Amino acid sequence: MQLGNTPHLFPTGLREIPIQSVLVTNGDIDHVAGLLTLREMQPFTLFATPSIHGVVADNPIFDALNASVVKRAPISLNEPFELVSGLEATLFPVPGKVPLYLEGEHVQTDLVGEQTVGVALSAQGKTAYYIPGCAALTPELRTRLDGADLLFFDGTLWQDDEMVRAGLGQKTGKRMGHMSMDGPDGSIASFADMQIGRKVFVHMNNTNPVLRPDSNENAIAQAKGWTIGQDGMEITL
Amino acid sequence: MQLGNTPHLFPTGLREIPIQSVLVTNGDIDHVAGLLTLREMQPFTLFATPSIHGVVADNPIFDALNASVVKRAPISLNEPFELVSGLEATLFPVPGKVPLYLEGEHVQTDLVGEQTVGVALSAQGKTAYYIPGCAALTPELRTRLDGADLLFFDGTLWQDDEMVRAGLGQKTGKRMGHMSMDGPDGSIASFADMQIGRKVFVHMNNTNPVLRPDSNENAIAQAKGWTIGQDGMEITL
Repeated sequence: MQLGNTPHLFPTGLREIPIQSVLVTNGDIDHVAGLLTLREMQPFTLFATPSIHGVVADNPIFDALNASVVKRAPISLNEPFELVSGLEATLFPVPGKVPLYLEGEHVQTDLVGEQTVGVALSAQGKTAYYIPGCAALTPELRTRLDGADLLFFDGTLWQDDEMVRAGLGQKTGKRMGHMSMDGPDGSIASFADMQIGRKVFVHMNNTNPVLRPDSNENAIAQAKGWTIGQDGMEITL
Repeated sequence: MQLGNTPHLFPTGLREIPIQSVLVTNGDIDHVAGLLTLREMQPFTLFATPSIHGVVADNPIFDALNASVVKRAPISLNEPFELVSGLEATLFPVPGKVPLYLEGEHVQTDLVGEQTVGVALSAQGKTAYYIPGCAALTPELRTRLDGADLLFFDGTLWQDDEMVRAGLGQKTGKRMGHMSMDGPDGSIASFADMQIGRKVFVHMNNTNPVLRPDSNENAIAQAKGWTIGQDGMEITL
């Protein structure tokens, strides 16, 4: 999955950032706040579902992304589109919840729709999936992901109650819309019998013991075929 | 201006941040985006003018600051209030403009009201002023600041057109609501005849040559009695 001589795809200049396209899979703060650090006049296209675009549009602070240079492209579920030249993407629903700041009294944590999505990325016959938040591996999702060349998957917590046990809050992983790595319903067990070329955990919370290279949990995850994602990691398929 | 044994003013815990109070002087991204990085259940009081609170309230993303733990305190101009125990603060208007993301077709850059404010901080008979954005030194502001023990002042640009000349954009300092350091109307000349104990530039843009310790501009600013602010700087009065 190489996309040509990428440094030459982009204009260069004193303040240019080599970003053509930004895709957000969720409207929560950890997914959209980074938009506020992009430069005022940086041209790019912002891709998201209509629901996520709606969440962003409801916050005038994002109007700093000047409409004359930043195009907002609404993307329907399950319809392929060109994310950048030579790279096709498809958004699909995964179980999740609305952003923290839009939660009401009762929160449905296995909502399947436009609010939380995964992405299939395809180029030159290879397909990678990026799913940073996912509350459960549904049968539909199993079918979709089986046979993938590469999977980046929600690695928020090791165990559902690890933040509670650590005295850091009252929320479980399930309450936050995340399935955990460990246990019979965990992601490590759930993906064990599937054909996936490479499996990489992303989106780890700082309580997750897999982040410590010398932990038992890190050794277990690796023994089960998972890579623990790191900043700056590059993977060639 | 020492505030007692400050480390003991705050509760401690695995995820406690020693913040009791947050004061924002402007609703623009560089002033409010940091609120999104504070922890979900971190109790503090957010102080601002009613107008600035309105700007924040118009963006649901800030509802992540849970109303049950984060108190939003509206502060009237020119009315002293207790910012933290032993430290009195007063907000006052300075010339400026609305946040970038609320700009319309025509932007008034010398608006005086609740949208851009300075702060007087008083404790134990000493007074410091914090004014990170200011479009002009009005006669009223001169009168207010004369005799201050310490002034932190808007140091965005050295020269009004430095970003234009560097090819980084079309905006001047005046257009952004900032007076520059250099020139007959600049801050260095404007404050030269005033009695101020210490003068510190803050809020420098990355084009400002005073940031280079070996620049002529840095030497000029220091020769005129200014300190160039740095991250982590502490000043005892």
